[in-house]
Amino acid sequence: MNRSTGFGWQALRRGQVTIQDGFWQRWRDLIGETTLAHEFEELRADGHLDAMLLDRRMHRGRALADPWAEAGYWGGSVFWDSDLAKWLEVASARLEQTRDPALEAHVDEIIGLFEQAQRPDGYVNSHILTWRPHHRFKNLRDLHELYCAGHLIEAAVVHSEATGQDRLLQVARRFADHLVARFGREPGQIRGYCGHPEVELALLRLYDATEERQYLDLWRYFINERGQSPNFFEQEAAARLDLRPFRQNHPGSPYAYMQAHEPVRAQTKVVGHAVRAMYLFAAAAWLALEDGDDELLATCERIWQDVTKSKLYITGGIGSASENEGFTRDYDLPNENAYAETCASIGLFLFGHRLLQARLHSQYGDIMELALYNNILSGISLDGRSFFYENPLASHGSHRRVRWPWWCPCCPPNLARLISSLSGFLYSEKGQSIAIHHYVNSEARKDGFTLRVRTGLPYAGNNTIEVQTEAPVETTLFFRIPGWATQHTMTINGAEVTPRVEHGYAMIQRPWASGDRIELNFDLPIRMKFCRFEVEANRGRVALTRGPLVYCLEQVDNGADLDALTLPPDADFAPEERPDLPDGMLGLVGSGFREQVRDDGLYADEPAAAQPTTVRALPYYAWGNREPGEMQVWIRRAVR
Amino acid sequence: MNRSTGFGWQALRRGQVTIQDGFWQRWRDLIGETTLAHEFEELRADGHLDAMLLDRRMHRGRALADPWAEAGYWGGSVFWDSDLAKWLEVASARLEQTRDPALEAHVDEIIGLFEQAQRPDGYVNSHILTWRPHHRFKNLRDLHELYCAGHLIEAAVVHSEATGQDRLLQVARRFADHLVARFGREPGQIRGYCGHPEVELALLRLYDATEERQYLDLWRYFINERGQSPNFFEQEAAARLDLRPFRQNHPGSPYAYMQAHEPVRAQTKVVGHAVRAMYLFAAAAWLALEDGDDELLATCERIWQDVTKSKLYITGGIGSASENEGFTRDYDLPNENAYAETCASIGLFLFGHRLLQARLHSQYGDIMELALYNNILSGISLDGRSFFYENPLASHGSHRRVRWPWWCPCCPPNLARLISSLSGFLYSEKGQSIAIHHYVNSEARKDGFTLRVRTGLPYAGNNTIEVQTEAPVETTLFFRIPGWATQHTMTINGAEVTPRVEHGYAMIQRPWASGDRIELNFDLPIRMKFCRFEVEANRGRVALTRGPLVYCLEQVDNGADLDALTLPPDADFAPEERPDLPDGMLGLVGSGFREQVRDDGLYADEPAAAQPTTVRALPYYAWGNREPGEMQVWIRRAVR
Repeated sequence: MNRSTGFGWQALRRGQVTIQDGFWQRWRDLIGETTLAHEFEELRADGHLDAMLLDRRMHRGRALADPWAEAGYWGGSVFWDSDLAKWLEVASARLEQTRDPALEAHVDEIIGLFEQAQRPDGYVNSHILTWRPHHRFKNLRDLHELYCAGHLIEAAVVHSEATGQDRLLQVARRFADHLVARFGREPGQIRGYCGHPEVELALLRLYDATEERQYLDLWRYFINERGQSPNFFEQEAAARLDLRPFRQNHPGSPYAYMQAHEPVRAQTKVVGHAVRAMYLFAAAAWLALEDGDDELLATCERIWQDVTKSKLYITGGIGSASENEGFTRDYDLPNENAYAETCASIGLFLFGHRLLQARLHSQYGDIMELALYNNILSGISLDGRSFFYENPLASHGSHRRVRWPWWCPCCPPNLARLISSLSGFLYSEKGQSIAIHHYVNSEARKDGFTLRVRTGLPYAGNNTIEVQTEAPVETTLFFRIPGWATQHTMTINGAEVTPRVEHGYAMIQRPWASGDRIELNFDLPIRMKFCRFEVEANRGRVALTRGPLVYCLEQVDNGADLDALTLPPDADFAPEERPDLPDGMLGLVGSGFREQVRDDGLYADEPAAAQPTTVRALPYYAWGNREPGEMQVWIRRAVR
Repeated sequence: MNRSTGFGWQALRRGQVTIQDGFWQRWRDLIGETTLAHEFEELRADGHLDAMLLDRRMHRGRALADPWAEAGYWGGSVFWDSDLAKWLEVASARLEQTRDPALEAHVDEIIGLFEQAQRPDGYVNSHILTWRPHHRFKNLRDLHELYCAGHLIEAAVVHSEATGQDRLLQVARRFADHLVARFGREPGQIRGYCGHPEVELALLRLYDATEERQYLDLWRYFINERGQSPNFFEQEAAARLDLRPFRQNHPGSPYAYMQAHEPVRAQTKVVGHAVRAMYLFAAAAWLALEDGDDELLATCERIWQDVTKSKLYITGGIGSASENEGFTRDYDLPNENAYAETCASIGLFLFGHRLLQARLHSQYGDIMELALYNNILSGISLDGRSFFYENPLASHGSHRRVRWPWWCPCCPPNLARLISSLSGFLYSEKGQSIAIHHYVNSEARKDGFTLRVRTGLPYAGNNTIEVQTEAPVETTLFFRIPGWATQHTMTINGAEVTPRVEHGYAMIQRPWASGDRIELNFDLPIRMKFCRFEVEANRGRVALTRGPLVYCLEQVDNGADLDALTLPPDADFAPEERPDLPDGMLGLVGSGFREQVRDDGLYADEPAAAQPTTVRALPYYAWGNREPGEMQVWIRRAVR
């Protein structure tokens, strides 16, 4: 990327990085071997594939027999094509790793459906073509056509890179070319943009893959046009004679939900639907880098600071409210009814990754890592077959949650997509420098220079980095020192070094030769974290963390009434092996108190007694995988 | 009462008890001098009086010009007649105390409107007659006709007792006779009952005033018919061709809201709308006493225990949810969004008072007192001109509340009604015994025997009871020892006595002579109260009480961010005079800590520092009378 300006860093691509064994390869294998097949069955059962079939008359017939038909709701959701596309993307990445003829057949089947559904002008969207053919590009506010196009394009780029085939890429390019023709400021074009940002991210990937400037131009147009006045969605609604009031009860602008309340560059506080906001700002940050656009980059940085300083759960979740699946006011971070959608944290991860290319600073990697190991990974069960769409920080009483085998199909394939593309987020290069952002067992290659990383993370702080190089070469290596590491030590070929650390990155500049070996060890003590006062739900409470992991209590380990447990300031916790669980998981075990439940009336003159008790915590991502029961992250501090 | 059976105690009536000066007379005067006039103006401004005018064609004309007209909503609420009736009741009680020609004229004006509106058959309801004449007794579920009839009857009884005039009583009896003719199990009668219990309470008052058994019979019919199967409201809806689903999303039975989900005697847990439930069970308890019906009394006692053991705020509020203005599950007592309607606590007060006549036990008086001094009295401002309909236990951030000059007109006149009739709730008699339930400056007379009570309550624990009697007489006096009194001492004519205490009542049996003087002193220390664990909102928190009063913190005394204040277990509080406020009010002052608000990011490795600070508390009833700001009852305990 950044072809035009050379501004900033460039992420090493999927082709340059191979993830190998260890924590994340286990997850990638699980997704490839189990989740993909499970999701394929769910997509089939949901009717996603039916919806793509050519004989749409049959569907219409069923629709007429159905009371929802008039509203056009039968035939599934407006975003079903995107779910299929996300699945294709994950499946393609899997095929890159391993031959799987059955999977390949499924992939080709779905690609065939897209091919058959595509119109001669390039347009394809099974929901619109089947159910609302007259609504084509008539309701960008609600109908997700460009969002679906975006996921199709992204899947096509990955499919092409992963398999070397261009069948799906042909479909995607025809569609993208259609979008280029139809959208813009020229006469006869639609001067609009999608209610759900995503196509912007796709266009930059397509530009990256094809180097066709028309995709860059359309991407830039979408970023700059969004939120301009007069409001496009109002004009569009009037044009289709839809005079119903829109989101009248929505706090603030009704268009904040779709990031169309004001131009991107005018935004100072993050608002609206969290996924939409993050996708937009990730794409905007990428554009800022591409164009060397400092003003746009400053906007993105301002939004990042706003999200991470006042609207971020300790688990890396964002978007606390279910009403708008999004942001509310500063510090409004309830635990039990946290929305914290898995996809929103994925968006935050993508956004942070872009800002990281502009400025090497560990805050971006810290928050990407926080989101990844906690709010994102909690979205999938340890067996790869069930999911959380929302990621609350407490679950008990009337708010008790369990994982769903499917539910809203948006998050499961999106999470699988992120994990299957993780290799593209670990390293960056810039001139003769390579930066390691995330420690994952992997091999990174650049111009005959190879880094081989082995790590104990997330459960141990030891990292080994081995260099292989065709010829000795002067290269600067940057190593992110995570914010949670109270101390770090480094040796090179056994000799201790004390590298300069700047903005959270340790820097070693020297000629490297094959066999050079860096040992980088992080202390990862168990920590009690205390929340800012403004967050009402966490007053008088602590959370336990170790390294990148946030921990939680579960009923199955601690008994019911988790909120009766309290921790004194000197609570002594130690890691504890959990051979009953995968990942080489370490729990925490320590001592606290359990408030006794009284039975002497509602209000008493004495506090309830508290008995010393053992308290066991598990990584947050692992909750909800055993007997259903209570869970909580923020634990009461013992009172005096 | 209890003419037929002589079962239980009998409350001394309004005519036997005179409240004189002191705390409650100040409130009665404020209501008589200020609130009544304010409410009259609000009723006029709201159109209550317009709705009673005879020229209804004018109203219909306005309705047709109004978009709500089709739904029949213009012309005000279905319960407006009841608001006028409540006002009449308060005004009548005022006229008993003092001549006020202007007030008398208003009273006569409204009585005239009722007279003019009444149909020859006795029916009167200005809303139905004006707006829905064809709906007369066609929708008892929703239209509050019998509820309005009930308040009219109650007002008429009080007006007759207070003024000796029977104009309004004539109207009420004609209406009541119409109800007797129209409702029941005979052919041609409506086998139904009102969606909002109230007429049951009115019928017993009318029976009490007139000794006409037909009113007792109708009252008994309503209690016994309610909730029988098949459900009357379903049949009624079908009869008017209303096939819309009813309260489908309501948890549990859709008819719990109007106490029609099952027969009264089958109920074991209190459910539904809190005011409706309390009015019903107060009337049922009264009937149980009247009929000597042990089964019904046991039902009432079971419901009382359920309410007070698991659904009662520390302020005496009940009905925590706004969705149904009522009850949810056990221990669901949120503070900020507590509904705790003023009228619901009034209903609880009435219910407790009835059970108290069945069984002399201090729990009833304790809870009546708790409701009266806290959740009920908080419903009116110190200047008598603004009101709380809901009575939350915390107010800050997005839930901040302020008093309303009117809002829903149900509570303000109902609260005024209770306070103006308070004399009827203080004493009971049974044979040669008199029980004092509530210590209020007052004189109680029975058969030439007079008790004159002077009290320091609610701010001091000293009580003096003087006897006047025409001839020395052997009488047993029962004195309630409040649950909050850690100690009590009694002297008779200066000599210390140690009376036997049973079920919370001290008992002195002896011959009394004029001039006998009992001094009864209660300790009323400042107490920290701790809540049962199950109430999530109060974990790690304490409330401050003194005597019958619950205290709260207000921003105007303590600064913003009240929830940053914490109290150690040994927090030393003392009473503090508040000459800036009426009632001889005592606040509390003590020491606590204030958690410092950090500005170092959302999550930190160290807890925020806490500084010692002075904490000031005020009686809960007095909150919301100065600068608007935060308030909270449950204060965080200091953590260690």
